[in-house]
Amino acid sequence: MAEPEGEFDLIARLFKPLAADHPGGLGLGDDAAVLSPPSGQDLVVTSDALVGGRHFLADDPPETVAAKALGVNLSDLAAMGADPLAYTLAACWPADATTAWIEAFAGGLAATQRAHGIHLVGGDTVRTPGPMTLTVTAFGLVPTGQALRRNGARPGDRVFVSGTIGDAALGLHLLSGNAPLTEAADRKWLIARYRRPTPRLDLGRRLRGTASAAIDVSDGLVADVRHLAEESGCRMEIVASAVPVSDATRRRVADDTALSAAVFGGGDDYELAFTAPPAATDAIAGIAAETGVPLTEIGTVSEAGGQGPDVTLRGADGAVLDYGPGGYRHF
Amino acid sequence: MAEPEGEFDLIARLFKPLAADHPGGLGLGDDAAVLSPPSGQDLVVTSDALVGGRHFLADDPPETVAAKALGVNLSDLAAMGADPLAYTLAACWPADATTAWIEAFAGGLAATQRAHGIHLVGGDTVRTPGPMTLTVTAFGLVPTGQALRRNGARPGDRVFVSGTIGDAALGLHLLSGNAPLTEAADRKWLIARYRRPTPRLDLGRRLRGTASAAIDVSDGLVADVRHLAEESGCRMEIVASAVPVSDATRRRVADDTALSAAVFGGGDDYELAFTAPPAATDAIAGIAAETGVPLTEIGTVSEAGGQGPDVTLRGADGAVLDYGPGGYRHF
Repeated sequence: MAEPEGEFDLIARLFKPLAADHPGGLGLGDDAAVLSPPSGQDLVVTSDALVGGRHFLADDPPETVAAKALGVNLSDLAAMGADPLAYTLAACWPADATTAWIEAFAGGLAATQRAHGIHLVGGDTVRTPGPMTLTVTAFGLVPTGQALRRNGARPGDRVFVSGTIGDAALGLHLLSGNAPLTEAADRKWLIARYRRPTPRLDLGRRLRGTASAAIDVSDGLVADVRHLAEESGCRMEIVASAVPVSDATRRRVADDTALSAAVFGGGDDYELAFTAPPAATDAIAGIAAETGVPLTEIGTVSEAGGQGPDVTLRGADGAVLDYGPGGYRHF
Repeated sequence: MAEPEGEFDLIARLFKPLAADHPGGLGLGDDAAVLSPPSGQDLVVTSDALVGGRHFLADDPPETVAAKALGVNLSDLAAMGADPLAYTLAACWPADATTAWIEAFAGGLAATQRAHGIHLVGGDTVRTPGPMTLTVTAFGLVPTGQALRRNGARPGDRVFVSGTIGDAALGLHLLSGNAPLTEAADRKWLIARYRRPTPRLDLGRRLRGTASAAIDVSDGLVADVRHLAEESGCRMEIVASAVPVSDATRRRVADDTALSAAVFGGGDDYELAFTAPPAATDAIAGIAAETGVPLTEIGTVSEAGGQGPDVTLRGADGAVLDYGPGGYRHF
């Protein structure tokens, strides 16, 4: 399983500096990293694989591929209310990944690390005959027992979501060659939302003790709220007209109403969906003001009843909108 | 990024039971796992990616692919002297991975978990147009500050290796269609050594405080001892005739002397190479007796000198054997 010697030099040059600021990486010189979570803290662990052509596009810039590989994992930490600590990267490079590409990718990792205070501590690098495949495993800290969970929603709670929903799915739709006449500023916004997740770490941290359940919106709003409903054993209803969308998304959907399905079901938003009791409404408004992240009430939680836990998306006329079964990527 | 609903059912059925015995997996129902390392213990973290056709063969049985995906990571924990705790799995399934295949794979994971006392706590599952790609991130515990490192070897130390070297490389050579006339028992042994790593966890644990440096032999004996030399800033010499080989490997090399290069450079042995001062010789013999794992002295450590850290493999006549630059997969 030997790689050419040049691979080692490349890795040493590009990736060792990413581990320089965390003692647990042991300078990437050992078989494994060593983490020492302080007492009173739980270690939160998440792992996501990104496949080129499926989770990012082959011609996405290397910097944004790096931002996404790390960002989707940071988003999982945010959903648990955890502070970022460290990560490992297992990178499978295809034959056409040049040194220049990998160099720019490492630059993107460095920038994302700096933005979120997280450090590389280890990993693996191999060649693949298939598409580029990047698996990041990220570690975060949360005070013992205070991690946000999916299973705490209760009947009477309200459902909230951060930021805006649907941008990333419409960005992907544009990148796939659709709607070339879309206004330049809208294109830029939607595509950036697809390529560069904005993990809501500060929000997640502040929701500890206030949210009753939380998840990050990666598979699609309806699918992810369904996970909250299933894990909490409740029924949830989302009011479609309450779901916050950006001006760019509003304009795209006005042009092509069929895109509504992509807004509610498309995924890749990396916003947080969460529940909280009505008594928390003021606290949530305060958190929105402090973090500068809009938090919007989009629905309600009720008893599961005879049909069992599920989610319903209700349109303006009260009709139930069906945007398919929704996705499931994680286990 | 939605997967069909059937994917969720499959995952729930096959993988949730693998997480049933570890509370930190949260039943695989959340965005992340929660680990709570006890105080006085460091958490050791390792991550390895396996690509079908490169790190295992497309027609390897699913049970052994599972044993290998988990085993190579357990071997890294062993090299650090850590006790297994938990792991995540990010699995990229190709289109031709059937439910029956994934089911047998999950069975292999269950058996390997039981054998080594480790539990699934999370991960990710996606589809890929490329070859199957499996990234395991494994977690182990070691008393604070006692992890075995690569950088502790000192001039005067001896170099040791566990078990036998070269079997896996010759097993792969057979599986690649070579030497069909090899005796059935030898075939079986060599192929099993390629497909099923035997992570030396008990050995690694007992080497804490005795070995001065350690690594697992994954890239090839010479390449991995070179990592020890480089991290420790020493020169190391391996006596080729001292390197322990199985009877099956001895017979294969007698048939085809060119296979020597595969023995010393081929990798996938998942034995431990380590150094220790001469005063530890009796302790090491004791550890071999207690664990039932043969431990063989194969070389010596000296000052790096003017040429810098490196490794030399010396043949019977004193000549230096050159088996190429050796591999490097990890960072």
